Amino acid sequence: MPSPKSSPAQQIDQQAQQLDSTDKLSALKSQFELPENGVYLDGNSLGALPIIAKQRALETVELQWGRDLIASWNKHHWIDLPITVGEKIARLIGAGVGQTICCDSISVNLFKLICAALAKQPGRTTVLSQVDNFPTDLYMVQGIESLLSQERCQLKSVNANNIEQSLTEEVAVLLVTQVNYRTGYIHDMAKLTKLAHAKGILVIWDLAHSAGVLDLKLDDCQVDFAVGCSYKYLNGGPGAPGFIYVAKRHLSHFKQPLSGWMGHSQPFQFSPTFESDKSISQCLTGTPAIISMSILDAALEVFTAVDMSDVMSKSKALTSFFMQGLKTLKLDQELTCISPQSAELRGSQVALTHPYAFAICQALIAHKVVADFRAPEVLRLGFAPLYISFENVATALHRLKKIMQNKEYLKAEFQQQGKVT
Amino acid sequence: MPSPKSSPAQQIDQQAQQLDSTDKLSALKSQFELPENGVYLDGNSLGALPIIAKQRALETVELQWGRDLIASWNKHHWIDLPITVGEKIARLIGAGVGQTICCDSISVNLFKLICAALAKQPGRTTVLSQVDNFPTDLYMVQGIESLLSQERCQLKSVNANNIEQSLTEEVAVLLVTQVNYRTGYIHDMAKLTKLAHAKGILVIWDLAHSAGVLDLKLDDCQVDFAVGCSYKYLNGGPGAPGFIYVAKRHLSHFKQPLSGWMGHSQPFQFSPTFESDKSISQCLTGTPAIISMSILDAALEVFTAVDMSDVMSKSKALTSFFMQGLKTLKLDQELTCISPQSAELRGSQVALTHPYAFAICQALIAHKVVADFRAPEVLRLGFAPLYISFENVATALHRLKKIMQNKEYLKAEFQQQGKVT
Repeated sequence: MPSPKSSPAQQIDQQAQQLDSTDKLSALKSQFELPENGVYLDGNSLGALPIIAKQRALETVELQWGRDLIASWNKHHWIDLPITVGEKIARLIGAGVGQTICCDSISVNLFKLICAALAKQPGRTTVLSQVDNFPTDLYMVQGIESLLSQERCQLKSVNANNIEQSLTEEVAVLLVTQVNYRTGYIHDMAKLTKLAHAKGILVIWDLAHSAGVLDLKLDDCQVDFAVGCSYKYLNGGPGAPGFIYVAKRHLSHFKQPLSGWMGHSQPFQFSPTFESDKSISQCLTGTPAIISMSILDAALEVFTAVDMSDVMSKSKALTSFFMQGLKTLKLDQELTCISPQSAELRGSQVALTHPYAFAICQALIAHKVVADFRAPEVLRLGFAPLYISFENVATALHRLKKIMQNKEYLKAEFQQQGKVT
Repeated sequence: MPSPKSSPAQQIDQQAQQLDSTDKLSALKSQFELPENGVYLDGNSLGALPIIAKQRALETVELQWGRDLIASWNKHHWIDLPITVGEKIARLIGAGVGQTICCDSISVNLFKLICAALAKQPGRTTVLSQVDNFPTDLYMVQGIESLLSQERCQLKSVNANNIEQSLTEEVAVLLVTQVNYRTGYIHDMAKLTKLAHAKGILVIWDLAHSAGVLDLKLDDCQVDFAVGCSYKYLNGGPGAPGFIYVAKRHLSHFKQPLSGWMGHSQPFQFSPTFESDKSISQCLTGTPAIISMSILDAALEVFTAVDMSDVMSKSKALTSFFMQGLKTLKLDQELTCISPQSAELRGSQVALTHPYAFAICQALIAHKVVADFRAPEVLRLGFAPLYISFENVATALHRLKKIMQNKEYLKAEFQQQGKVT
């Protein structure tokens, strides 16, 4: 317990020490390459490098590609990677065997699933989504709308609050990102899926900010379809491939339009006619991105002995500790927290608004606290439970306090735009 | 000159020595990791590892991802990679600036271009292609046909001989792979494009077996659209990303349906409405596969001082030498060459048919000559001019002769199916 005479800053340090001492996941941090003296709070944009993934990169490039060349497709099981990696992800998202596969990007995978879902809903054309969904999700629907014409696909975007009441029998597909990319608000997957199903609506969940940090139960929630990326909390590296989940009950009457040779039932027969594989492999399109996928395969090893409920608990503890710290240091008077106050409704990130959010973000980076800016005025901090300690959070709080106290964000050097992602 | 008293095998060795001594590209071989005592004749499936690409892999993973993390999007120019790499490829395919971009796979890119081309051809629905095109090209059209219905897209596949006469005013798009993946036959790009244009047809060229080995002139040939992969003669590594070429004249009225956030004119404004970029970037979809793309970026450095006309000349000399060697060793009595006899019509590969082609391929591999099998009975050998010497070809010929002479392909161990790619 912090002594009553401690300063607010000291109280935070004492609490951090105590929380770290009982952290079940604390040993995992040593499995990552992390910046010295820095605090990396942008794992929700790009996860840190697992040491095992670095070794795998070298092995895949030097030994597999360099030495065994084309033979590696069999010898090193490259051809199986979409499935192998898919099943490793499946374990983390509560999906039984045979429903998850690794391929392409979230955007491309959304295209496949939206088209496939619409094809299963004759007479319905509306794709319902959220105005502040991550834009690419909306853009992909807009692309389909324009390709198929509004007679077959119409995007309807509503505010988060209005989703439930918009679940009507005109809606073909509900497309939601489970964790809002700005605020971190978590939709109730079980509830929304059930409400949608009651109206005959199919649901596509985007797990971009969920996979690898929430204790997901896709099968239990009767989810129809999902996509996700692997470069955030799954630590697969920049631009690592995405994944697709299709519930087993849908696999036998499923048709996605990006029917490339890897989705063929007999890709190496080189038949001129496409015949879809009946398994989850039908979601594949072109030749898989082997180097990236192999690195991801290794990165997922870090999760082997990890229980996702522990990861989620730590996530909530980290964000709660940070938000409490903002109050303790009276930072909440200047920075407005737009993330849910209830930990149950909050993903592994905290979003703060401030007119100088961009400059504050730059100042934090200069102080080796890597956070993220989202236009127009959101400072976003992501807390990756596998490698962020409570001590890291305390450090971030102290440095943020110093920046705010000294109004460092007014310095010209921090106000120059141009940061990406 | 080989002495008249030399044995056929000696003649081949003497010729190889002579050809190597005048090979302008011979120094490039040292820039690759190559199997010791082996001959790698499968560069048309997966190019060998450039040493510089191995170094880049380590740098991208360890230093950029590991140390600089998210800052690398700007600091190490990850965000520019699709363009940077695209422009490096542009130089090799005869494309002026601003028309080539690196992204996704050939299959996904074909989907974008076929839809975009159809949209520019109101009233026309036929996509004309070749029966023995690489299957994924046909499959992608079949996927679009099924998505849009035959009222908007109809695949018509004809034999190579019938393409010209099938160029009628019903045809919207001609989709051809320039170099046949089995035989290596090269279509005349200038001629077919011109004939197609005369009937108002747009042409998509698939450069899978062309880029990095033929002296391509896309701009000069007035090509409309092209796709290609980078893991064959561009040596980008397994599953390296593909590329797209869109002629400048088409960019301002172009619409591809996979409209992801990376193709937005202002991706980091996070607007809910898609507004296409006007440049070649409009062909992008999701987050680029940075690690693979960075490795490819390095691999392309090998081409920096290389003139593609020298590469193509050596390609023709290599395949001619191999085909002449087959005759010298009387191997042509058993193995039927289905590649064009005229070097002008032949890509950088030689295809031989034999009822035991699969087993012969396996026996060659056991003798460290890596060739490729294509069902049902094609033995395919690819000659990558950047790292294959004439001595390598001579070695391959001697080993093939031994296998055929001893009928090694009858051994049970070589008849087991399962090879991939």
